[in-house]
Amino acid sequence: MKVAVIMGSKSDYPKLEEGIKLLERFGVEVDARALSAHRTPKQLVTFLAEIENDTDVIIGAAGKAAHLPGVIASHTLIPVVGLPIKSSTMDGLDSLLSIVQMPQGIPVATVTIDSGINAALMALQIMSIKYPNVKEDLILYRKEMEEKVLEADKNLRG
Amino acid sequence: MKVAVIMGSKSDYPKLEEGIKLLERFGVEVDARALSAHRTPKQLVTFLAEIENDTDVIIGAAGKAAHLPGVIASHTLIPVVGLPIKSSTMDGLDSLLSIVQMPQGIPVATVTIDSGINAALMALQIMSIKYPNVKEDLILYRKEMEEKVLEADKNLRG
Amino acid sequence: MKVAVIMGSKSDYPKLEEGIKLLERFGVEVDARALSAHRTPKQLVTFLAEIENDTDVIIGAAGKAAHLPGVIASHTLIPVVGLPIKSSTMDGLDSLLSIVQMPQGIPVATVTIDSGINAALMALQIMSIKYPNVKEDLILYRKEMEEKVLEADKNLRG
Amino acid sequence: MKVAVIMGSKSDYPKLEEGIKLLERFGVEVDARALSAHRTPKQLVTFLAEIENDTDVIIGAAGKAAHLPGVIASHTLIPVVGLPIKSSTMDGLDSLLSIVQMPQGIPVATVTIDSGINAALMALQIMSIKYPNVKEDLILYRKEMEEKVLEADKNLRG
Amino acid sequence: MKVAVIMGSKSDYPKLEEGIKLLERFGVEVDARALSAHRTPKQLVTFLAEIENDTDVIIGAAGKAAHLPGVIASHTLIPVVGLPIKSSTMDGLDSLLSIVQMPQGIPVATVTIDSGINAALMALQIMSIKYPNVKEDLILYRKEMEEKVLEADKNLRG
Amino acid sequence: MKVAVIMGSKSDYPKLEEGIKLLERFGVEVDARALSAHRTPKQLVTFLAEIENDTDVIIGAAGKAAHLPGVIASHTLIPVVGLPIKSSTMDGLDSLLSIVQMPQGIPVATVTIDSGINAALMALQIMSIKYPNVKEDLILYRKEMEEKVLEADKNLRG
Amino acid sequence: MKVAVIMGSKSDYPKLEEGIKLLERFGVEVDARALSAHRTPKQLVTFLAEIENDTDVIIGAAGKAAHLPGVIASHTLIPVVGLPIKSSTMDGLDSLLSIVQMPQGIPVATVTIDSGINAALMALQIMSIKYPNVKEDLILYRKEMEEKVLEADKNLRG
Amino acid sequence: MKVAVIMGSKSDYPKLEEGIKLLERFGVEVDARALSAHRTPKQLVTFLAEIENDTDVIIGAAGKAAHLPGVIASHTLIPVVGLPIKSSTMDGLDSLLSIVQMPQGIPVATVTIDSGINAALMALQIMSIKYPNVKEDLILYRKEMEEKVLEADKNLRG
Repeated sequence: MKVAVIMGSKSDYPKLEEGIKLLERFGVEVDARALSAHRTPKQLVTFLAEIENDTDVIIGAAGKAAHLPGVIASHTLIPVVGLPIKSSTMDGLDSLLSIVQMPQGIPVATVTIDSGINAALMALQIMSIKYPNVKEDLILYRKEMEEKVLEADKNLRG
Repeated sequence: MKVAVIMGSKSDYPKLEEGIKLLERFGVEVDARALSAHRTPKQLVTFLAEIENDTDVIIGAAGKAAHLPGVIASHTLIPVVGLPIKSSTMDGLDSLLSIVQMPQGIPVATVTIDSGINAALMALQIMSIKYPNVKEDLILYRKEMEEKVLEADKNLRG
Repeated sequence: MKVAVIMGSKSDYPKLEEGIKLLERFGVEVDARALSAHRTPKQLVTFLAEIENDTDVIIGAAGKAAHLPGVIASHTLIPVVGLPIKSSTMDGLDSLLSIVQMPQGIPVATVTIDSGINAALMALQIMSIKYPNVKEDLILYRKEMEEKVLEADKNLRG
Repeated sequence: MKVAVIMGSKSDYPKLEEGIKLLERFGVEVDARALSAHRTPKQLVTFLAEIENDTDVIIGAAGKAAHLPGVIASHTLIPVVGLPIKSSTMDGLDSLLSIVQMPQGIPVATVTIDSGINAALMALQIMSIKYPNVKEDLILYRKEMEEKVLEADKNLRG
Repeated sequence: MKVAVIMGSKSDYPKLEEGIKLLERFGVEVDARALSAHRTPKQLVTFLAEIENDTDVIIGAAGKAAHLPGVIASHTLIPVVGLPIKSSTMDGLDSLLSIVQMPQGIPVATVTIDSGINAALMALQIMSIKYPNVKEDLILYRKEMEEKVLEADKNLRG
Repeated sequence: MKVAVIMGSKSDYPKLEEGIKLLERFGVEVDARALSAHRTPKQLVTFLAEIENDTDVIIGAAGKAAHLPGVIASHTLIPVVGLPIKSSTMDGLDSLLSIVQMPQGIPVATVTIDSGINAALMALQIMSIKYPNVKEDLILYRKEMEEKVLEADKNLRG
Repeated sequence: MKVAVIMGSKSDYPKLEEGIKLLERFGVEVDARALSAHRTPKQLVTFLAEIENDTDVIIGAAGKAAHLPGVIASHTLIPVVGLPIKSSTMDGLDSLLSIVQMPQGIPVATVTIDSGINAALMALQIMSIKYPNVKEDLILYRKEMEEKVLEADKNLRG
Repeated sequence: MKVAVIMGSKSDYPKLEEGIKLLERFGVEVDARALSAHRTPKQLVTFLAEIENDTDVIIGAAGKAAHLPGVIASHTLIPVVGLPIKSSTMDGLDSLLSIVQMPQGIPVATVTIDSGINAALMALQIMSIKYPNVKEDLILYRKEMEEKVLEADKNLRG
């Protein structure tokens, strides 16, 4: 099981960190890269060619006019999960629209702005259709989440 | 290969029709349903339980406060592709945000507003990690798209 | 008189605290719960079934793609007051649209973003059509508010 | 059982018509009025004083800078359901924000833009806490809606 | 020369302070009041009746669903300058739309969000059509502004 | 009494026509001009210089990046009423923000998008502080509006 | 003088047609192409390599998540003028933000949504810094525009 | 090679500083000015007339209703790069729309909100069509950017 996590800038890393750890906790090999669709277009295409045959899902994370996930998707058929990153203006709307509103033919599986965890979980759910153990681990993970909510609920009720 | 296509209202069907045909053209069995997260919550949960073990991907399409894809995702680990439908007000922004901004833990793979084709293609790309023939067919499909663009380009150049 | 206050995450509590205290000051029994529409869908439905016959109003508070109030409304006929919570992106617009734009048939009584007080007051006004003493207390509460404004006005005028 | 339906302009009537009929079908006496918060402020206040003691819920519908529901709410403790009407610019966002974002102390129970049906249903749900027969009729109404969805679902499945 | 400055909440005062000082510097008598359209509707109407004959311009400042300027305008023919105040959500868009999008017949002269200075200057420009000395002072004020810009420009050029 | 009505393009005329007629009905001399801040900047400045001494109010109407009202305001102290015109994209938001968000020092009295009537009424209200007969006529005009609403209300009540 | 006009889809042509004719009227050789950043990424890069040495400006036009202008800009140093195309949802905001909000290092010269004329004029103004005759023709073009406005103004004044 | 950098207020300088340094590093003579379209309209026109014949590109930066770049563009045929500055409200949307949505005939080359670097790079790319050495330096600059990304990528991979 292998996931490539490509971010448009190394400064996006903090928003991906938890997601990467989650993937690793699930036994997924993670190839985390900082490659820009605009500043390193050739290296990006080269990297995509290299991973074409051994990668299950690609996570693309970018801010502003976030072309990275869509550009990745145009070069591969590996499912691309798009993570919009909020930058200093426009409250995340620019990256969300730049990622989700892909023209007909080349979709990107867009998730919650700034949620590296949701990007990782979507990658895992996609992989789970192929790897039964991922599905089992996801069931446990959901159980854990459920318990945390119930614990918080219990505390709230005193 | 099986995909469930759940729409919040039968009136959403025209925006899904092309996507459903595309899935069928790829040899996917499609189970198209009109079930509302709000008006038929129990039937929705029952249906999700029924398909849990024989369905690869679920497409959820809804407009306005489009809870359907997220509610589906909360009841299953099958990957859910969310299709925001534009209604008569707010130009699609309400359904987009209601689908994509899922809280941590339960992601939905959101695609372009009103693009049934992109929802279908995302479902196919997800299935392609498990079914090699889908990947082969997707390669041909992309080739076709490419040729259509090049044909249009040729016409434009006269 | 009983109001259930359900929040999607315990982290929403600070925005509800004042409202809960206001309800209690009016002699309302408050059942405050942290239950997620997505992470604990079954417990939520169970809880709603339990309170069906002894609760007058439900307040549902959630952020991002805030499905909680709408999901509650789909399982009960008890009036649901929806409180949109602003999260770290989109300035509250995502939760507002996800709560207020409910499809035909299942309305949610949406109030001001982040205003736990307004959620509580709306619950009280709804209860006042049944409990005359609530109406009387609301008259006093408005009188108090009026006096605070007049006091501030007096200070301003020096 | 009595509901006052106040619209800011007679041109808003078509968006309220279905809701008014629904209320009447439930046996509610409807007092439909066209009174403007800005052009007839005095008549509005007079009317509100008249209905103070015999009306259960008020529906206020208005477009653009839709002050009507909030102004009504400032003159009465009867619960006010606010219905934002989409006008020729801003796609309904102006009326939505003008109705829902009420300052602390005077909430309006805002429902889906342009949905007279949802405004009527919210009024009925509020009344149902006092009138048990309304609750029974609402249960039937939901059953009907459910059946319509299931019928549409059946047709879709062929 | 008299201007009434009405704010919906005393907490709006800091955004008006500079504007009030500017009016006073121009020799205008300022009647600054904190009166809410929703919490003190009667006192507001009473105050407006009192000032009807001796006030040249009214400035109304409010946040969120900012009805105050429009409600003032519905009770008087004195020109109303509307100042939208940004609150903790929606970045000022809610108050802007609630003030500027007035229905046909009752306009509000809306100025820049949070700019007490611009509200004061608009009041002064309106008064200048009646009081020639205000126009003269405004000419000097503009000259001053111009000089400040040119001074800053000079510093920038070193 | 004289009002200059400047539109950025002759195509904006239909949205101003009713307002111009209203001004004329009030006995105001109207100087209607089509002058662009961008395509005829010099003629605009020349025209503004010509009318400086005999004009009470200027109405500036423009769409898209609607600079016209602000540019007018920078060249005169005559009060400028800004009318945002909705064009084929952005639903009026671009012209609204371009007109109302003027930087400190040069305000524009912005009114409802596309409402030539409100622009005219604001001009009349401003003039009414100088011309008592305008105020009297405005009182009658409001009376008329009130009667129209009451007539519509009567019809509605059957 | 040569300008390449690249559109993401042949359906964008009607919004570019007038601009292309304007360029030709100025004696510019226009190479109009329909190439998609996502469906024909390789042909796009090949085309950009071919024109690198004989093209002065590139116009890139696209709708939705409009990556085309930014992707072009990442492969060339020829100035890229970006033309956002409004599609069936989001009123042009998605393409505008996807084009203008480019990350640091790779700017796109974005112009008015749907204005092929402005894209062409910006290309001409850029070329005018190198070709003095273009500047002369632009002076005449502006003179023409000015005369059209003055003609319309004359007609308006009757 | 000469670029004029005009900011609407000296407070915009920090957002331009890096861009100005970049221009100077490329050997461009920079004329940085703080001139307001509204507070110093005459000095702005005078300055534009002075630089008409010796300046290659003008950068105009402004916030709120950012008319400056458009007003500059209406007085010159020198290409104008527009830099929207985010102010305390509306998250940059007001300045973006006020700059980019120019009416037909007078385009502004708008770049990323708050990115002085992108404004400078666009100016350099425009100049590069005339000055071959700028193009060579831009090739090196892109190489540098590429290397920085690759360095970051290397660090990330450990």
